[in-house]
Amino acid sequence: MTAADMSAFLDQEFEQVKGDFTIEHVAANQVTVRLNIQEKHLRPGGTVSGPSMFALADVSAYLVTLAMIGPEALAVTTNCSIDFMRKPAAGVDLIAHVRLLKLGRQLSVSDVLIYSEGMPAPVARASLTYAIPPAKNA
Amino acid sequence: MTAADMSAFLDQEFEQVKGDFTIEHVAANQVTVRLNIQEKHLRPGGTVSGPSMFALADVSAYLVTLAMIGPEALAVTTNCSIDFMRKPAAGVDLIAHVRLLKLGRQLSVSDVLIYSEGMPAPVARASLTYAIPPAKNA
Amino acid sequence: MTAADMSAFLDQEFEQVKGDFTIEHVAANQVTVRLNIQEKHLRPGGTVSGPSMFALADVSAYLVTLAMIGPEALAVTTNCSIDFMRKPAAGVDLIAHVRLLKLGRQLSVSDVLIYSEGMPAPVARASLTYAIPPAKNA
Amino acid sequence: MTAADMSAFLDQEFEQVKGDFTIEHVAANQVTVRLNIQEKHLRPGGTVSGPSMFALADVSAYLVTLAMIGPEALAVTTNCSIDFMRKPAAGVDLIAHVRLLKLGRQLSVSDVLIYSEGMPAPVARASLTYAIPPAKNA
Repeated sequence: MTAADMSAFLDQEFEQVKGDFTIEHVAANQVTVRLNIQEKHLRPGGTVSGPSMFALADVSAYLVTLAMIGPEALAVTTNCSIDFMRKPAAGVDLIAHVRLLKLGRQLSVSDVLIYSEGMPAPVARASLTYAIPPAKNA
Repeated sequence: MTAADMSAFLDQEFEQVKGDFTIEHVAANQVTVRLNIQEKHLRPGGTVSGPSMFALADVSAYLVTLAMIGPEALAVTTNCSIDFMRKPAAGVDLIAHVRLLKLGRQLSVSDVLIYSEGMPAPVARASLTYAIPPAKNA
Repeated sequence: MTAADMSAFLDQEFEQVKGDFTIEHVAANQVTVRLNIQEKHLRPGGTVSGPSMFALADVSAYLVTLAMIGPEALAVTTNCSIDFMRKPAAGVDLIAHVRLLKLGRQLSVSDVLIYSEGMPAPVARASLTYAIPPAKNA
Repeated sequence: MTAADMSAFLDQEFEQVKGDFTIEHVAANQVTVRLNIQEKHLRPGGTVSGPSMFALADVSAYLVTLAMIGPEALAVTTNCSIDFMRKPAAGVDLIAHVRLLKLGRQLSVSDVLIYSEGMPAPVARASLTYAIPPAKNA
């Protein structure tokens, strides 16, 4: 899947988050995703909320899995471990770099580094496991 | 802090989530929190989204920490590990039961079980670490 | 499987850890396992090492899965998240209480609380996912 | 600290694991560590056990923290999340590449990729948090 294919798929399947994410770059086993920061993503002081960072990590891991197996709305997150390491910069988009570390028959495993745009040190890291529906393995 | 104290604190400090959560019960090292499901929390099919479950786990762990140390807007999540185990029932509130397992000088550790209201098996489990600001330890 | 069945299975399949663990109690979706502390499990000062606590959590989650699906040497750990919360007491056995939270076709999810024998507060908590081989699902 | 300094420190402070690990390479915020596979690290079939992989991840995260703060036997692991992705090759050493993602006053966060020597795909990934004793922050 290309970045355009993935964007179209995301808009169609997940209306609730339409406009939240931009797929910046797709390569083998890697995707870069932007969280377009809006008021709803913020906490007092303008920092990005934990759930917004989780949502970015989650969608990024989903997309890097889809990039390899094709559009599959039914892949589901089974586990996420996330470390919040630094306070995001106020009013700045977040950029997630995700790598697919394993694509098995039943599970994918990805890791994600999240940056405030323009800052050198990551604000969060996450690893996620997705369960892949059996039909896709046939 | 009582449930009413915590509700007032949450509404004041985190306007973005006002009305999302109801604190149902507070006891020593335990809090029960309801996620009042709204359209914004859902995915296609009416199931509750992963980020909404993360948000519930996160606020629950925050509240059980506050219940013991007093109002402290500056406690921050440093780690969350969450397992998504079953699909939440469509259009039903989620209930989180959180236990404080450790309250140290620098860190608190909690675990959370999340249920679809009225169903016996948990839909998710999470463990969270909060960093407690040094000022509160003095 | 009973505690005796599980002990026999463990001794036969995992010779390297023979004598390390005692299965204390088995109930529906719950098992209690003792780590019989020996010199090899310790760190300077007599405290139990992190890898020894991990090993206890891992074997406990394995056993609570086996208790429900029957002897299955091929179930494998796919994820573990562990929080080390307190220093174990010196020279004292560890006791793990494990609960099976989910037993699906492909995955089991368990959580574990580990105690130094005789102390009220847990020294560690862990959650583990095991992948169950397809053959067992037929 | 250099690789030689770290090796000497490890041998002195942790006699129980003497000879298990070789520090292969040290750079800014990065360390490479080898697990010298011995009989005690194996499971039936010659694969490396989960606790041995955990031990390698744990010591690697410890060493990359020490490399930056200096010898400090009292830094302790507070959290580890580990994904086991592939079966290690039989009878082959494991190599861990660890990166320090954050070094704060109270906590360090590292991530680790573990490889069977000579194989291109990682067998495990882990992220670890270490608590740094207050004295070192003064």
